[in-house]
Amino acid sequence: MSDEIVRYDLPQSAIPTRWYNIQADLPRPLPAVLHPGTHQPVGPDDLAPLFPMALIGQEVSQERFIEIPEEVREIYKLWRPTPLIRARRLEKALDTPAHIYFKYEGVSPSGSHKLNTAVPQAYYNKLEGVQGLTTETGAGQWGTALSIASNFFGLECIVYMVKVSYHQKPYRRAIIQSFGAQVTASPSDTTEAGRRFLAENPESTGSLGMAISEAVEVAAMSGGKYKYALGSVLNHVLMHQTVIGQEALLQLRRAEAYPDVVIGCTGGGSNFAGIAFPFIRNNLNYGNKTRILAVEPAACPSLTRGTYTYDYGDTAGMAPLVKMHTLGANFVPAPLHAGGLRYHGMASIISELYDQQLIEAVAIPQLEVFKGAVEFLRAEGIVPAPEPSHAIAAVIREALAAKEAGEKRVILFNLCGHGHFDMAAYDAYFKGELTDYEYPQEAIDAAMARVPQIGGGES
Amino acid sequence: MSDEIVRYDLPQSAIPTRWYNIQADLPRPLPAVLHPGTHQPVGPDDLAPLFPMALIGQEVSQERFIEIPEEVREIYKLWRPTPLIRARRLEKALDTPAHIYFKYEGVSPSGSHKLNTAVPQAYYNKLEGVQGLTTETGAGQWGTALSIASNFFGLECIVYMVKVSYHQKPYRRAIIQSFGAQVTASPSDTTEAGRRFLAENPESTGSLGMAISEAVEVAAMSGGKYKYALGSVLNHVLMHQTVIGQEALLQLRRAEAYPDVVIGCTGGGSNFAGIAFPFIRNNLNYGNKTRILAVEPAACPSLTRGTYTYDYGDTAGMAPLVKMHTLGANFVPAPLHAGGLRYHGMASIISELYDQQLIEAVAIPQLEVFKGAVEFLRAEGIVPAPEPSHAIAAVIREALAAKEAGEKRVILFNLCGHGHFDMAAYDAYFKGELTDYEYPQEAIDAAMARVPQIGGGES
Repeated sequence: MSDEIVRYDLPQSAIPTRWYNIQADLPRPLPAVLHPGTHQPVGPDDLAPLFPMALIGQEVSQERFIEIPEEVREIYKLWRPTPLIRARRLEKALDTPAHIYFKYEGVSPSGSHKLNTAVPQAYYNKLEGVQGLTTETGAGQWGTALSIASNFFGLECIVYMVKVSYHQKPYRRAIIQSFGAQVTASPSDTTEAGRRFLAENPESTGSLGMAISEAVEVAAMSGGKYKYALGSVLNHVLMHQTVIGQEALLQLRRAEAYPDVVIGCTGGGSNFAGIAFPFIRNNLNYGNKTRILAVEPAACPSLTRGTYTYDYGDTAGMAPLVKMHTLGANFVPAPLHAGGLRYHGMASIISELYDQQLIEAVAIPQLEVFKGAVEFLRAEGIVPAPEPSHAIAAVIREALAAKEAGEKRVILFNLCGHGHFDMAAYDAYFKGELTDYEYPQEAIDAAMARVPQIGGGES
Repeated sequence: MSDEIVRYDLPQSAIPTRWYNIQADLPRPLPAVLHPGTHQPVGPDDLAPLFPMALIGQEVSQERFIEIPEEVREIYKLWRPTPLIRARRLEKALDTPAHIYFKYEGVSPSGSHKLNTAVPQAYYNKLEGVQGLTTETGAGQWGTALSIASNFFGLECIVYMVKVSYHQKPYRRAIIQSFGAQVTASPSDTTEAGRRFLAENPESTGSLGMAISEAVEVAAMSGGKYKYALGSVLNHVLMHQTVIGQEALLQLRRAEAYPDVVIGCTGGGSNFAGIAFPFIRNNLNYGNKTRILAVEPAACPSLTRGTYTYDYGDTAGMAPLVKMHTLGANFVPAPLHAGGLRYHGMASIISELYDQQLIEAVAIPQLEVFKGAVEFLRAEGIVPAPEPSHAIAAVIREALAAKEAGEKRVILFNLCGHGHFDMAAYDAYFKGELTDYEYPQEAIDAAMARVPQIGGGES
């Protein structure tokens, strides 16, 4: 066999023992999270109906590293460390001098990176005596991950699934149910919020924001029996994902490489944070100069076209106000085939990093994304989910730019999930049924007009 | 982290360099393959219209080991070595003293073991100047694997997909197409055989036997432009799968364990051969006493209820006559949710091993299979395909027997693929829509009455 290495595997002993908390290294502290009613900074007691104290503590912690509990690492062993793969066949197909590495999180039981945070969230809830978790899911990846994690710890799991996905993705619903979770199409008549949405529009096909409102309500009204779990956006969720980038650092050391650019797709921001934060740390603290690139859909461009201001995380305005890059909580994204990226806002930390120009962002239209996905899968054999295919499209741009410049550039990206449940999207692409969506500025302005006016927007 | 090891990974340098050819160790040679017209033993020239010479050579080789070409091993690196996993959580759930190990082939780009043979088959065809490959697919796993392998070597790929699957599994069709293959629902009007099947029954939903007839015809009539590729049954196909068992031997050595029983599901026999043959070698040559257990569906029990005699591999009687355990080439299996196991016959080698009592076999009904699958996925987080869920059900029987006997038994099984494209089956199971099928003996007798009477059935 030639000694060209394709995969850089690590032993189980190399699974990180600590999560990296980038809050310790931010040049300025994050803007406070505000109560949706009073607009005053929230304290732990405000969040206690929704989250266990351990996670509330992590949400505001300024410690650089937080130890990963042994019970969590035991379950991480089922799929971690994930492989780092050198995309040699894609490099050849692009005829580029660039070296392209990707971290492949699709090997997890849930098929995406989401399980990295679902497991600790279930663990801490179990520890505090919670009986079950409520959540929302759109594309279905988060619902799958939380159902698996809840099952591991003997917790009930109640999933509000955006109605259009519930019907269009019966196999995603089935896999969530196979792990014992209860799945309800949202908006539903099981909550006050759901009944209100249905009264406004009985034909509503739902949205992530509506499903969040329903899941939050069930937890908040349960008297502590249920708590709520979110799959992205929050600080602790992003932190749990840093196992990805920490492993990648070790694996790249084996490859005797260090990235010139790190690329991830962004919806709420968690897979991007997972791969990027350990490299941002090296930029901030050790003088490295790696470019960090967030890639979002042109149809949901919260970083590149959104405003950095306080907004709600959900449609009903029940979730706390967070300062973030937002298109407006009432923004309704186009029916894009990357459900995981159809969120109006961006994680607070990532918004702050972008505002401080510590990361770059680019928006890519859907057709270029699928073109890149097909180029990748034919080279590497792995069918990527539409979400990380945004990262792939940006990688291809970078690799071709390197070729143009005649430079060997080292590119690292996060392939955060496989596309086995997204073949309908590929089918539509091959049939020529997909189009590009680009929002007119007036639509974004209209959604932003409904965002509350709160000081601190200037920072 | 506790030092309980869950996964036994190997470095890429441990990818086997040779396939193991069990023909070298069989106590008596395999019965000859006969020409479907003359009933005389076929020679290489008879097979040359369908297969490249290198594979025909492997089909009849008596060499114990055959070197794996470097180009093939290069592609194996994309997913091999596959993990060996100790199912500690399933052991705990079953409260058994047994140690359960499984080899997980679902990490391959095609999601199953099928790619282990698709890659060398495409390679040898490319080497001999073939322009494209024809094949059939039922459940879709083989079509997926061959489309990926053909794409890697720049070969066209023409897939006849059983019509009922073509319509019921549009996402399987889409993934095959995404790698550039041409997919036709079978029976079709593109071949003589297909037109004949349609004339007999315009509403036919197809069968594997019909699809094989169509794919074979296209290759045979192409004047060498296309050759045919089969995903199981043939000797060289089974041999290519032995990378699985060879890796498992190395991994079990790391675990300081050796199996008391090796378990695999059987349709045509290839994943079973892959895990079992290296252990059968140790039984035959080194005095080991590992039990080797083939698990088949009660609805398609070719080993446990079939007859060991000469039969056709396809419905039209165009394929050579092979001595095998068969239910009759005209046997129509029940609409079982394990498409990969719905084949009337069994690989010649496995039939011979069974006839010589070197392996055992058991048939398990569908509901017990899905019950086992759900028990497994809730413990281990991995959704198994319905096919290897037959092996899982047998593993659970063994583990409970070990508990009953108070014995520590080491069980190894092959989890040959994930079930991401089989969620409709799980959905039906949870809805209580699945039933057990057990064929009445008269139906089997009726199908066998149409099998040609050829000497050698007694051996």
